[in-house]
Amino acid sequence: MRNLKLTIEYDGTNYAGWQAQKRKHKTIQAVLENTLRKILQEKIRLIASGRTDAGVHALAQVANFKVKSEISLEKLRRALNGLLPTDIAVSKIEEAGLDFHSRFSAKAKTYRYTILNRPYRPALLRNRVYFYPYPLDINLMRQEARCLLGKRDFKSFCTSGSDVRDTMRTIKRISIKKFSDNLEGAPLLVIEIEADGFLYNMVRNIIGTLIEIGRSRLPKGSMKKILSAKDRRRAGQPVPAKGLILLRVNY
Amino acid sequence: MRNLKLTIEYDGTNYAGWQAQKRKHKTIQAVLENTLRKILQEKIRLIASGRTDAGVHALAQVANFKVKSEISLEKLRRALNGLLPTDIAVSKIEEAGLDFHSRFSAKAKTYRYTILNRPYRPALLRNRVYFYPYPLDINLMRQEARCLLGKRDFKSFCTSGSDVRDTMRTIKRISIKKFSDNLEGAPLLVIEIEADGFLYNMVRNIIGTLIEIGRSRLPKGSMKKILSAKDRRRAGQPVPAKGLILLRVNY
Repeated sequence: MRNLKLTIEYDGTNYAGWQAQKRKHKTIQAVLENTLRKILQEKIRLIASGRTDAGVHALAQVANFKVKSEISLEKLRRALNGLLPTDIAVSKIEEAGLDFHSRFSAKAKTYRYTILNRPYRPALLRNRVYFYPYPLDINLMRQEARCLLGKRDFKSFCTSGSDVRDTMRTIKRISIKKFSDNLEGAPLLVIEIEADGFLYNMVRNIIGTLIEIGRSRLPKGSMKKILSAKDRRRAGQPVPAKGLILLRVNY
Repeated sequence: MRNLKLTIEYDGTNYAGWQAQKRKHKTIQAVLENTLRKILQEKIRLIASGRTDAGVHALAQVANFKVKSEISLEKLRRALNGLLPTDIAVSKIEEAGLDFHSRFSAKAKTYRYTILNRPYRPALLRNRVYFYPYPLDINLMRQEARCLLGKRDFKSFCTSGSDVRDTMRTIKRISIKKFSDNLEGAPLLVIEIEADGFLYNMVRNIIGTLIEIGRSRLPKGSMKKILSAKDRRRAGQPVPAKGLILLRVNY
């Protein structure tokens, strides 16, 4: 038996996420599993580092599966990229130890959220960024984000409906940067958050709150208050999925 | 009567180009004209700086039209961006002199061609770049491109079928740069060409030839020979439309 580790890039626009709650919709996991089964002639069960929601993208999602086949890694990668739809690509396949588990072995994950901050909506980046036309005080956002660093209870940023009991997570890094040297020359605001794990909707709830702060709709010191309230109703509205991308998973 | 100048961003993926040869397919021009007519309640004829082919994008296409309506520029831009499909956006509307003509008044245009140069295909950039997995000698490409600068007869790079008689054009600038500090961290090769005008398929034929040179499929000195042959059959195959974007038009 082999345990293979895939690194996967996808555009989440046309999918109901990595794994759907209901079986009706097209998911990235199902498309990958079906394609793997076709190639390997074995039933495949993929384990991902975590689910991504409908519309969320990944530059380097990681998923592993056990298989008997002795196919070479290079041949498998070519077959996959030949058969997968164009919005899913496999960038790497590696042999992993039998105890490797994409979710439980993960030490840290990094998500990026991208905001287009200009007066008119995008055409080229329409599925990749959240269009926000109002001015944002970036220094204030950076100051307020600082209290999220370290081991904290992020209950206020966890959308209810998830069955997680332990809402403690450790955020290792938050960076908020202007980035306009991109292909479109677009004035982007790029926010990256690295943590040992994320609660359901945690990034989108944090970014939503940061935007309220940057827009001066919430007073200085709000982030700290919201965090310590441990009450979901206190945080800002979650931002749209399309601006979110799973950047990397560290093991 | 007013003459209004639009600056337009579009993703050309789902269109038969700016203006189709046959009336059957959806074109960017037709979508814009119909939307303008709905807003302004007048029949509108848009004049663009030039046609772009099916699948070719624009960051700043320019088009003008004459209209009687006294609508404010800001109101018109909002109405347009509200009604246009998400893959077309109007970034600017300006009042132009009555003699302004998007095509005839243009002094220079800049096109960019983007190549993804790595072993596996993209998912996120699939409609924006030409995936080319083989190594390219960029310095050689730069050297060979130099002979294209200045006023030249580009007949060898003009796809037949066009009815242009004068095939002399002036290329003012060609830059070939590696660019990996993009949102995807992808190893891109970005080629920009600025000229007073372009023949049909000229950019795509030049890039196709440059790639053959960079791959060492054509010997050193080939570009000069192909240029002076004034024979379309000598140049390389045109590269796919999706890597091409109209970057700007100068007046």
